[in-house]
Amino acid sequence: MVRLQFSVELNYQVLEPGADFIFNLQAAQTRHQRVVSERLEISQPVVTRSHTDAVAHTRTLRLSALPGPLRVLSAATVDIAHHRMQPQDLGEVRIPDLPPQVLPYLYPSRYCESDKLHGFAVQQFGALWHGYGRVLAIRDWVTREVAFRSNTSNSLTTACDTLANKQGVCRDFAHLMIALCRAVNIPARFATGFDYGADPALGPPDFHAYVEAWLAGRWYLFDPSGTAIPMGFVRLATSRDAADAAFATIFGGVQSQAPRVHIEAVADDQGVLVLPVHGTDALSTDTGEA
Amino acid sequence: MVRLQFSVELNYQVLEPGADFIFNLQAAQTRHQRVVSERLEISQPVVTRSHTDAVAHTRTLRLSALPGPLRVLSAATVDIAHHRMQPQDLGEVRIPDLPPQVLPYLYPSRYCESDKLHGFAVQQFGALWHGYGRVLAIRDWVTREVAFRSNTSNSLTTACDTLANKQGVCRDFAHLMIALCRAVNIPARFATGFDYGADPALGPPDFHAYVEAWLAGRWYLFDPSGTAIPMGFVRLATSRDAADAAFATIFGGVQSQAPRVHIEAVADDQGVLVLPVHGTDALSTDTGEA
Amino acid sequence: MVRLQFSVELNYQVLEPGADFIFNLQAAQTRHQRVVSERLEISQPVVTRSHTDAVAHTRTLRLSALPGPLRVLSAATVDIAHHRMQPQDLGEVRIPDLPPQVLPYLYPSRYCESDKLHGFAVQQFGALWHGYGRVLAIRDWVTREVAFRSNTSNSLTTACDTLANKQGVCRDFAHLMIALCRAVNIPARFATGFDYGADPALGPPDFHAYVEAWLAGRWYLFDPSGTAIPMGFVRLATSRDAADAAFATIFGGVQSQAPRVHIEAVADDQGVLVLPVHGTDALSTDTGEA
Amino acid sequence: MVRLQFSVELNYQVLEPGADFIFNLQAAQTRHQRVVSERLEISQPVVTRSHTDAVAHTRTLRLSALPGPLRVLSAATVDIAHHRMQPQDLGEVRIPDLPPQVLPYLYPSRYCESDKLHGFAVQQFGALWHGYGRVLAIRDWVTREVAFRSNTSNSLTTACDTLANKQGVCRDFAHLMIALCRAVNIPARFATGFDYGADPALGPPDFHAYVEAWLAGRWYLFDPSGTAIPMGFVRLATSRDAADAAFATIFGGVQSQAPRVHIEAVADDQGVLVLPVHGTDALSTDTGEA
Repeated sequence: MVRLQFSVELNYQVLEPGADFIFNLQAAQTRHQRVVSERLEISQPVVTRSHTDAVAHTRTLRLSALPGPLRVLSAATVDIAHHRMQPQDLGEVRIPDLPPQVLPYLYPSRYCESDKLHGFAVQQFGALWHGYGRVLAIRDWVTREVAFRSNTSNSLTTACDTLANKQGVCRDFAHLMIALCRAVNIPARFATGFDYGADPALGPPDFHAYVEAWLAGRWYLFDPSGTAIPMGFVRLATSRDAADAAFATIFGGVQSQAPRVHIEAVADDQGVLVLPVHGTDALSTDTGEA
Repeated sequence: MVRLQFSVELNYQVLEPGADFIFNLQAAQTRHQRVVSERLEISQPVVTRSHTDAVAHTRTLRLSALPGPLRVLSAATVDIAHHRMQPQDLGEVRIPDLPPQVLPYLYPSRYCESDKLHGFAVQQFGALWHGYGRVLAIRDWVTREVAFRSNTSNSLTTACDTLANKQGVCRDFAHLMIALCRAVNIPARFATGFDYGADPALGPPDFHAYVEAWLAGRWYLFDPSGTAIPMGFVRLATSRDAADAAFATIFGGVQSQAPRVHIEAVADDQGVLVLPVHGTDALSTDTGEA
Repeated sequence: MVRLQFSVELNYQVLEPGADFIFNLQAAQTRHQRVVSERLEISQPVVTRSHTDAVAHTRTLRLSALPGPLRVLSAATVDIAHHRMQPQDLGEVRIPDLPPQVLPYLYPSRYCESDKLHGFAVQQFGALWHGYGRVLAIRDWVTREVAFRSNTSNSLTTACDTLANKQGVCRDFAHLMIALCRAVNIPARFATGFDYGADPALGPPDFHAYVEAWLAGRWYLFDPSGTAIPMGFVRLATSRDAADAAFATIFGGVQSQAPRVHIEAVADDQGVLVLPVHGTDALSTDTGEA
Repeated sequence: MVRLQFSVELNYQVLEPGADFIFNLQAAQTRHQRVVSERLEISQPVVTRSHTDAVAHTRTLRLSALPGPLRVLSAATVDIAHHRMQPQDLGEVRIPDLPPQVLPYLYPSRYCESDKLHGFAVQQFGALWHGYGRVLAIRDWVTREVAFRSNTSNSLTTACDTLANKQGVCRDFAHLMIALCRAVNIPARFATGFDYGADPALGPPDFHAYVEAWLAGRWYLFDPSGTAIPMGFVRLATSRDAADAAFATIFGGVQSQAPRVHIEAVADDQGVLVLPVHGTDALSTDTGEA
């Protein structure tokens, strides 16, 4: 088990009355990720509406802001007890045997045009032995082939664009890996969160985007950007792609500042400090069930 | 109440073992659309897996086919008692007040790039009075601006393509209307089904695609292609767009024949025959709840 | 006749040996645009290669730079004696009658996907009386429908994107107008230059992009962005679209600063100062011939 | 020298008066491809306008057709005396040293988005030794990676689409190869013609599309589709991409039949029959000069 502590502070200047926000800023609670304690601060005296998706566990917070400054702070201490498996034991699941709630992650989405990438994916990964190893091969290929470079992509950049451009940030790596998985019939989804142990050379701590693929009855973690330690992920939202898992979706005239993120590993109640490390086990924090 | 009877027959030649199918071929059962009787025939002795989505009511059938011919027939008699409202009473719902299960229909998807169309939609429809009338204005604009022409679009055609091309089939009309609605923050989704009373000049009876938009706490029906009578729709599936509501998604080597569709209005148990007609009432068959 | 004086200064930091530059920075010399005097300064002692396209009149300058700072200054005094016509006298030219050198401007190009916009253009402008008035209608539509906003587009933005997005900068206005013209079989091309009298609210003086359309045997000027005075354009390059008319195309590692542009109207040799003004005459500076 | 004899017959049904055609149907005449004799038949008594581009050598024929059937036949006997070089002697040309008329083939175009593919191309081919061998590596990669399959692409398919889809016809192979060449600063263009010795398994004889890349002062031939024998190409048009080199561009309501193509190698005046064969020499038929 690892215990991670994070905080994120968002600062906005709301320019018009009634600017609406949809936030996905709170740690998901799954069978394997337990929120020990948490804090949520909203600087404006507004009504908020919260919802936790029973299956995806994403926690959505909505509010309509007043003109002026808006500060949102979300912080939590989270215990993560990963489900660990030997990679060789994890097979792909045949389409008729997928749980119904997993089917949506098989189809193309806004940023993951798996239909367009079908030919590429089949040619590159179609003949590989089906199972965790194939997803790992896709992850390795994306990590190796795409260069991490800030400011080379934007909110319109899709998986096909990244295949052509071969550069991007964690979100682009994730989209490309997801599209390639789906194109060979492996359900895959977009996950956002914070990553303990990110390479400081990539800039200040920030949100992270990574991938969960469905194998042998669970969602397993993959980090195609290769910049983080999967054991050190705190999960916020999961979704088809970045179109619906943004940490903040804003409707209206708002100026945003860069988020201020902090994350660290801390000792548990017994005083034991476990640091996230790279390993070869397959890791999962979600059974995909309610 | 209208009583409609439909049947659809699909014929395939399966070329390789283990070709998987995901069908959405059975009439949805909602508070307003009741399946009086139905029949499902599958010509191969294979195991099928059925699932009904508790919220969307879509009924998914999966199977893994054997090589050789495969025939699937779905038929049903359906009673539809529309929820009817005066259009002027139906307002849009503010984003913080939308039910959580409606939020996914606010975001861009594979074929409905509402993010890219934001500027167009705001300019064209942003200043209109918010409510049913605005959705109607979007529907009318799509009906008027896009020409119905077979074989002018394909499985890659998106809402942006249709805006530029100004022609397509019912699926393209639906994608464009959905994208424009979402771009002005009105949740909208893709619905597939059969339409009683389609213009025979458009070809033999076929599947139909139309739109449901969320207003005043319900999903209301719209037919942007202008080729059908909304009162005469039998709903099969709803989804973000055609990427996940196909009547058949096929994985593997399969040859398909054109579907054979039949639909008619029939008399109810009291011998009363009500024919679907065009009207000015707002029609809904779904509260969006489980 | 107007006499305009411009200067543009470009400053680069060349990071690696052998970075190549293709510049289009010098005023075109046409039958109607005469370069009275000009100056070109290049801060590095490198060989340059100049070429003037006999038909398009674009003056290309190439060089391979040394590491370190590079400063390029181009300045000229230019006399422009516009060919003026009554708009109602200018007809479109039938495709078989177009001069061969005009044909390339009929086809889609990187940023002007006139093929994709065919449906839109025919529907919107197909029924209009053919001639200068139709091109004016296209220009007016683009000016009215697209909002001028900095930083809303980038080097990937195409005419179709701008149609959906309805915002952009002069380059985007030009691409959309060009694509719409070509889609209804009117040859149109991209022109770059400097514009006297630009609205200072849009920022410091900069390069400008506008459109030339082929009518009645000449290239006529149009300013779809509506931000400038066509009579006050000094033309540098013309081309199919921004892909090949960039004022600087850079191959290699180079940091660029914003260009520093100055333009003013000056008195001619007789001491007469003519200021560019808006007018209703059709203006041309190019017969399209060598 | 090889002597090739071809004929192509096109049949149309013109549905409205004044449908315009632009044909590129006649063999180019270059220093290395000599038209020994030729025939052109047009079944309607209409005025035609012919033009030969002085640099590209493309021969354009325009006409405005009458309603009713239109038959166009183009046939010729052509002697091709290839300029042959040892591949290892052919270097790439630095950008400042390219002839001006070659520059347009360095920029992205409608179907060859070399700008979007820059990252991919640099990563895959950037480190290779510059010269003919690099172009050959690009050609080999395209041949190996893309599968030849009819009806998998259409008139909207671009190089980026083909990279993702990994299948297409000769036109798609050519677009992808051209885009990859341009992305690493090698001028490349689209060539259309007929190919002696095409694999009959690919269907009846048809037009062929291939690539010319600029190396060491000449345009050299490449066949990325791998379906033909470069020595057996009769060249019709060259251009940036398929947008402007179509054998027929049609404006107006016209029904087209499949072209009927015949090509064979014939004996020269001395009775010597040379059959085109595969070889390792670099082949060129064009110096790129007028």
